[in-house]
Amino acid sequence: MPASLDVALNPASVAIIGASDNPHKVGGRPLLYLQRYGYRGAIYPINPGRASVQGVRALARIEDTPQPPDLAIIAIAGSEAVGAVESCAARGVKVAVVMTSGFAETGGEGARAQARMAAAARNAGMRLIGPNCQGLANFATGMVANFSTIFHELAGRDGPVAIVSQSGAASQAIYALLREKGVSARHVHATGNEADVTVADLAAAVVRDPGVRLVLLYMEAIKDPALLAAAALEAHARGVPIVALKAGRTASGQRAASSHTGALATEDRVVDAFFERYGLWRAADPQELVRAAELYLGAHRPRGRRLAFVSNSGASCVMAADHAERRGIPLASLSPPAKARLKTALPAFASLDNPIDVTGALLSDSALLGAVLPILGDDAQTDLLLVALPVAGAGYDVPRFARDTAHFQQTYGIASAVASPQPAVRQAFADAGIATFAREGDALDALAQLAGHAALLRRAAPPPPGRVGVPGRTRFLSEAESLALLAQAGLPVIEHRLCRDERELDRALEALGVDIVLKACSPDLPHKSDHGLVAIGPADPRAEFRRQRERCVVLGARFDGVIAARRARGGRELALGARLDPQFGPLVLIGDGGIYLEALKDYRLLLAPCAEDEVLAKLAELRIAPLLGALRGQPPRDVHALARMAVKLGDALIAWAGTVASVDLNPVMVFETGAAALDALVERRQDD
Amino acid sequence: MPASLDVALNPASVAIIGASDNPHKVGGRPLLYLQRYGYRGAIYPINPGRASVQGVRALARIEDTPQPPDLAIIAIAGSEAVGAVESCAARGVKVAVVMTSGFAETGGEGARAQARMAAAARNAGMRLIGPNCQGLANFATGMVANFSTIFHELAGRDGPVAIVSQSGAASQAIYALLREKGVSARHVHATGNEADVTVADLAAAVVRDPGVRLVLLYMEAIKDPALLAAAALEAHARGVPIVALKAGRTASGQRAASSHTGALATEDRVVDAFFERYGLWRAADPQELVRAAELYLGAHRPRGRRLAFVSNSGASCVMAADHAERRGIPLASLSPPAKARLKTALPAFASLDNPIDVTGALLSDSALLGAVLPILGDDAQTDLLLVALPVAGAGYDVPRFARDTAHFQQTYGIASAVASPQPAVRQAFADAGIATFAREGDALDALAQLAGHAALLRRAAPPPPGRVGVPGRTRFLSEAESLALLAQAGLPVIEHRLCRDERELDRALEALGVDIVLKACSPDLPHKSDHGLVAIGPADPRAEFRRQRERCVVLGARFDGVIAARRARGGRELALGARLDPQFGPLVLIGDGGIYLEALKDYRLLLAPCAEDEVLAKLAELRIAPLLGALRGQPPRDVHALARMAVKLGDALIAWAGTVASVDLNPVMVFETGAAALDALVERRQDD
Repeated sequence: MPASLDVALNPASVAIIGASDNPHKVGGRPLLYLQRYGYRGAIYPINPGRASVQGVRALARIEDTPQPPDLAIIAIAGSEAVGAVESCAARGVKVAVVMTSGFAETGGEGARAQARMAAAARNAGMRLIGPNCQGLANFATGMVANFSTIFHELAGRDGPVAIVSQSGAASQAIYALLREKGVSARHVHATGNEADVTVADLAAAVVRDPGVRLVLLYMEAIKDPALLAAAALEAHARGVPIVALKAGRTASGQRAASSHTGALATEDRVVDAFFERYGLWRAADPQELVRAAELYLGAHRPRGRRLAFVSNSGASCVMAADHAERRGIPLASLSPPAKARLKTALPAFASLDNPIDVTGALLSDSALLGAVLPILGDDAQTDLLLVALPVAGAGYDVPRFARDTAHFQQTYGIASAVASPQPAVRQAFADAGIATFAREGDALDALAQLAGHAALLRRAAPPPPGRVGVPGRTRFLSEAESLALLAQAGLPVIEHRLCRDERELDRALEALGVDIVLKACSPDLPHKSDHGLVAIGPADPRAEFRRQRERCVVLGARFDGVIAARRARGGRELALGARLDPQFGPLVLIGDGGIYLEALKDYRLLLAPCAEDEVLAKLAELRIAPLLGALRGQPPRDVHALARMAVKLGDALIAWAGTVASVDLNPVMVFETGAAALDALVERRQDD
Repeated sequence: MPASLDVALNPASVAIIGASDNPHKVGGRPLLYLQRYGYRGAIYPINPGRASVQGVRALARIEDTPQPPDLAIIAIAGSEAVGAVESCAARGVKVAVVMTSGFAETGGEGARAQARMAAAARNAGMRLIGPNCQGLANFATGMVANFSTIFHELAGRDGPVAIVSQSGAASQAIYALLREKGVSARHVHATGNEADVTVADLAAAVVRDPGVRLVLLYMEAIKDPALLAAAALEAHARGVPIVALKAGRTASGQRAASSHTGALATEDRVVDAFFERYGLWRAADPQELVRAAELYLGAHRPRGRRLAFVSNSGASCVMAADHAERRGIPLASLSPPAKARLKTALPAFASLDNPIDVTGALLSDSALLGAVLPILGDDAQTDLLLVALPVAGAGYDVPRFARDTAHFQQTYGIASAVASPQPAVRQAFADAGIATFAREGDALDALAQLAGHAALLRRAAPPPPGRVGVPGRTRFLSEAESLALLAQAGLPVIEHRLCRDERELDRALEALGVDIVLKACSPDLPHKSDHGLVAIGPADPRAEFRRQRERCVVLGARFDGVIAARRARGGRELALGARLDPQFGPLVLIGDGGIYLEALKDYRLLLAPCAEDEVLAKLAELRIAPLLGALRGQPPRDVHALARMAVKLGDALIAWAGTVASVDLNPVMVFETGAAALDALVERRQDD
């Protein structure tokens, strides 16, 4: 059990190895910041060549400090940093922050030096942040052990947000964007190469700070999902939302990430599944990461997603409806009584639909917004409100609009925001406690995010991630063995017989009838159709049996027999799968079936164990989802049966306890009632 | 032929009916602005109650002006505005700008008043802008016949951009966003209810202004596509790009639009097809509309889309790769010699891939960017450059980076941009003539837009839109008649026979063999499969013939016989369609076939006539496009044959000259070689 990182955020004393008198060098900045931001603990600049550094008495060696410092910053160049870590470890330092670069990010030799550094720390029970990191900053205590330029240009100020980032540059960008929104951060930490401490470690630490009400993460790799899940569970328990940017999202992004940090490429949709399970909201870029900050810091957690949009511009209303439709944001409906009230409140010609155009009449009638909003509140069909004021200059009573909106938010507990291109308009609303946006689209997206994230966090706390060892060498089972294993686990499979000879085939034909499919069964041929070894409704089953047997011989494959399976008709082919991920554990896949799965990639992943309603939600996200409902000349498909199969498959994978590496069920036929696997391929531990 | 609108942009004299002494009322603002912005023509405030208005001598009536004014602003309330238009028409005014509201946007009575107003103008040959419009603004001449608040808050300044918007509020928002980017507009026009003059009319007028180098449009309806196409062709000839926001894009957006402006809902993808044909770039929101303005105003028109990304932050590189992949922006490759040169220019450990991470070394080595860029230029594999500097504060030689980037852009003619969150960094690059962005994602999207739009505009000028009258009442042809008509037009259809009795069926079976499909043929049953009237490979064709005949009798449908068609195997089912759109003329549809077409809406539209390469480009945009290539166990499909069919179908629709309203070919089977319609449904003029 590594030592807690709480001391890293609140050390009683800080040493700076390689402290510089130049406040704008890497070794000088931390000293500048510790003093500027009022750090009250002991500060020990370590510099054998000087009696004082930036006016603070310097010591020659780390050994000269009166007590072992809680935290040591290491800012000396290159190879000397390894020795410094060793000295700190020997001295009993609790946390070392290594800013020095030139380690794993430079390749082989650097990686070996980094490994030595990490081992020295680990052996002494010292936590190591970095190397190649910008460091830590805690503006509650002034403990700014960080060399980032941004705290020079944009003075830090204590606030309710924590930023934890692998990349220093990203931490600066996020910090700057947040400040642009008028929100301050208490914590800004960058972990660099993560030889020991990862973003997940520090996320867990900042979540425990009662002053933190929103956590923003930037990662290029998730090195320890269990640790991140633990931090997320803690945050969930404390009601602190986490928004996370996992970069290296796409194939080429992952290439850049692996050359940048040496991180392993992970299948990106696993990250989606992992985040969703643990209630982390995933942001695509730094803007999206900070987008909803003001709304999160407000008191209101929407119970639903229905959005009301009120504007004094018809064009805004049209564009808002477009945007909502593109993003799948449901617009709140209005009940007939609410429409009747609106009719009396609005000018005669105004439309009585949401988006609500209060028209240019707002200029002459400053009470109009205050008259409209309670109608929405009383109607109780609205979960989110956006007031858009693209036109509001001289003559508009903006402070009144702000008061009316704040009163609405307060009275009805409905999260509300305003969008205006004019800073003065935004300021009036911000002063009244309303979240503000320059762009209407950003405001709509942020409100939808608040609602979506609230829904994630309303769910019961999920279990910690499954820990199932992944087998080393594996082999494929034959189709008959695979189907048998799955049937044993309680999954419905198509009715079939394995026929080792023509006599058995005759008996199968008696049992199944002639409307059958014949498929050669061999553990050596996982992809039968590639070899012409699948015959649908063969005219002469016995001749087909012989043909397939001969074909196996020609291919040099073992021949276990031919599977005669009842021909499945009148369903939709989907795919189910399961695999043990070395990082994320047991996973379940649902997707479009057949060759479509690989060609169109219309699939979703879930962490196992999963529940039926989770699977149904993922099914509904598939592009082919509309094909599962009632269509012309086609009844709806039994998606519940499919979802039950997915749940069982995930449970089975866990129950198999590392003996099964992966399962492909493709296709699974989903009927009007029921569903069944038509084909199966199980990848099993070699020695089972 | 209505009078030209050039006089609307450059009138020699302006009258203001309803001129107000209060410069912040609708009737006061135009007078304020005309004076403030230095309009040099004659100004005639018309106000029977005052001798002067805002210090300008007033006249009692429009009849009192020494000559008929070129332009008259009408700002008097309600019903009086109709009389004012009539007076202007009688006086010989060339253009009336009616700011007064309360017309078509308020419903029936207002619409009738508006119609009277429009008729009065039309009869006199006077052009009418509005009613319910914010008016015109030309900052080259100071002719600001506009009441928008924004020109008070954010002073107008002549520039190379023209904004034409249906909505006044949208015109203000676009203007403000453009100014935020440091770009100025010469023209800002808002057309309101468009009783006569539409956005397309004014677009055509501003395109003819040699000082205009970029046109931005906002529309909620395209009332006259031919006029807009004419403006686009003129812009194409002059090399002036047009970016257009057509709002009311989605179903609910269209509802809001129709209640807002009374505009007809149009099928949104027709607008996509129309814009693409005429080289208009479609923006989704106001931010996207102005996004690439600086790049358009630069001299460089990329010949391709390959983007190079250079940053001093690895995290930026990872996120840029993510963003490029999400948006389908191709990253430029580097040749081996270029990589070799990079290796000597960059720190030893830097990766030699694009995105190019010049690393933190840029701080100590200010020449680094200038060393890297010529390598990209000499390699000639880059069409677009983005330099991202998320980290650049004290100690960075930003002016040098800006000079090096400008030198690169100039030397190699490669459109270049910079992204930085810091205004000072952006300013240094802007001063050097480089387009600047606060957000890297916006910059990437803007560069991709510049390249995409340049490709659209490089194509030969398209023909003006087809004008084919749409038939009134229509009827469906039977399948046999439909297939015959299409075969006549040269489209491949599946081999088939219409069998009116069992003798003819026997002969068909002799000709086609037994592997057939039988389908009842009746003009009363366009959807045969809904009635169980399609049999694939029937065991007893004669019994099936009788069954289908009886079923038709039971359904009370005419029975033309049964179609025996060769059964098509081994292809992919797609859909083709064609229809005459009342607004946009002849259209061709390509999409995924079967019930998928309606359920998944995976289709694209093209304006007819269309060329084979256009169809292929649209085919490649379908979600199912990967299924048309070579897949496991499946050869690639003959997409060229399908494209030729689409071209022929469009040509046929035009040749049919309004006698055919629509054609559905669903499915069209696309084979390894060739393609053929398996089913057809033609909707024909009733009386043909």
